[in-house]
Amino acid sequence: MATRKGRRYHHGDLRAALLDAAERVLRREGPGGLSLREIARRAGVTHTAAYHHFEGRDAVVRALAARGFDRLAAALSAGAGAASGPAAFLEVGVAYVAFAAAHPGLYRLMFGPEAAAGRSTDPALREAAERAFAILVEGARSVTPGGGEAEVMGTALRSWSVVHGLAALLLDDQLGHLGLSLRDHERIARAVLSGGPVPTARGAGSGDGPR
Amino acid sequence: MATRKGRRYHHGDLRAALLDAAERVLRREGPGGLSLREIARRAGVTHTAAYHHFEGRDAVVRALAARGFDRLAAALSAGAGAASGPAAFLEVGVAYVAFAAAHPGLYRLMFGPEAAAGRSTDPALREAAERAFAILVEGARSVTPGGGEAEVMGTALRSWSVVHGLAALLLDDQLGHLGLSLRDHERIARAVLSGGPVPTARGAGSGDGPR
Repeated sequence: MATRKGRRYHHGDLRAALLDAAERVLRREGPGGLSLREIARRAGVTHTAAYHHFEGRDAVVRALAARGFDRLAAALSAGAGAASGPAAFLEVGVAYVAFAAAHPGLYRLMFGPEAAAGRSTDPALREAAERAFAILVEGARSVTPGGGEAEVMGTALRSWSVVHGLAALLLDDQLGHLGLSLRDHERIARAVLSGGPVPTARGAGSGDGPR
Repeated sequence: MATRKGRRYHHGDLRAALLDAAERVLRREGPGGLSLREIARRAGVTHTAAYHHFEGRDAVVRALAARGFDRLAAALSAGAGAASGPAAFLEVGVAYVAFAAAHPGLYRLMFGPEAAAGRSTDPALREAAERAFAILVEGARSVTPGGGEAEVMGTALRSWSVVHGLAALLLDDQLGHLGLSLRDHERIARAVLSGGPVPTARGAGSGDGPR
């Protein structure tokens, strides 16, 4: 396929190249910059060539989100490793927060309104999101021995809420007044998920006296 | 003070009326509609009269967020009632999710990037946010007997993460595939926060067989 800059892509390669370009746009300009025209320009192909793969911005957002959920699933699986049980499930949670910290724009896009709306019409996106969630559910099952499906789902939803909430609080810089920043996401996630103490700037200066 | 529609306000009343108008704009048009000109128009006063209270959109966003945190603090206090301990702390969490469900636009604004950035320069906003957080911390203290400050903060941060994450998952319609919707926020929050089971559509149709 001929391109403006003379680049040539095989069919699947161009799709991947367009998504790579879209991810660079997302990182540098935020979701507002994600027009098909801009993505084609960055990939060095014509708008028509890009249109062959994505019918517009919405399709790009859905494909980016699906790719994000695939990567999240891989990160969660790597976090668990070959183990199961409480220690492995804790690592799944740490990996979840680490993924959000490493890819803040992509993470926000995956859970944003456009991707949420796209799930009803885009099976690939829906299935990618459900595969990622299924890893959380399997981890929850391993720490809910003898639990029925509703008990396992309770554990899964509780765990997802904790990591999603902590990721949001860190990404949106809500914990700065406690001296907790995104930089320390691993230490904070580990403490929060293990039920451990979280030393904070507030604690140090709160005048509660020595312990 | 003369107004375009002939309305007259005392000084403090106009500020409140402008914030009421801003909240209506937020509810109907989202944060993109929050220009000082539009808010003045809705309140029936001149841009100049509005400018006397708010130097621009940023100031409106900060004031709306501060008012939101004041209301959240009141809702959390009402949730706890006169009691303390685990049962009261659970109600604080249920009240938190209920607040987000009742005021989705305001809640997103309170935790959005504009309000987060405004905290460093706006003591009223910072103090309102910290008052709301302090209620969570007091609740956490009541369920962490004998805990030092870091243990209490660990409990507080864990609890905040759960309710903030659950609120986000519900507001952003991430649980639809489980048959869980914002409408059922109270039941879901109570189950998640109490460590109980969460029956889901997935559980019913997952083929895991009878329990």
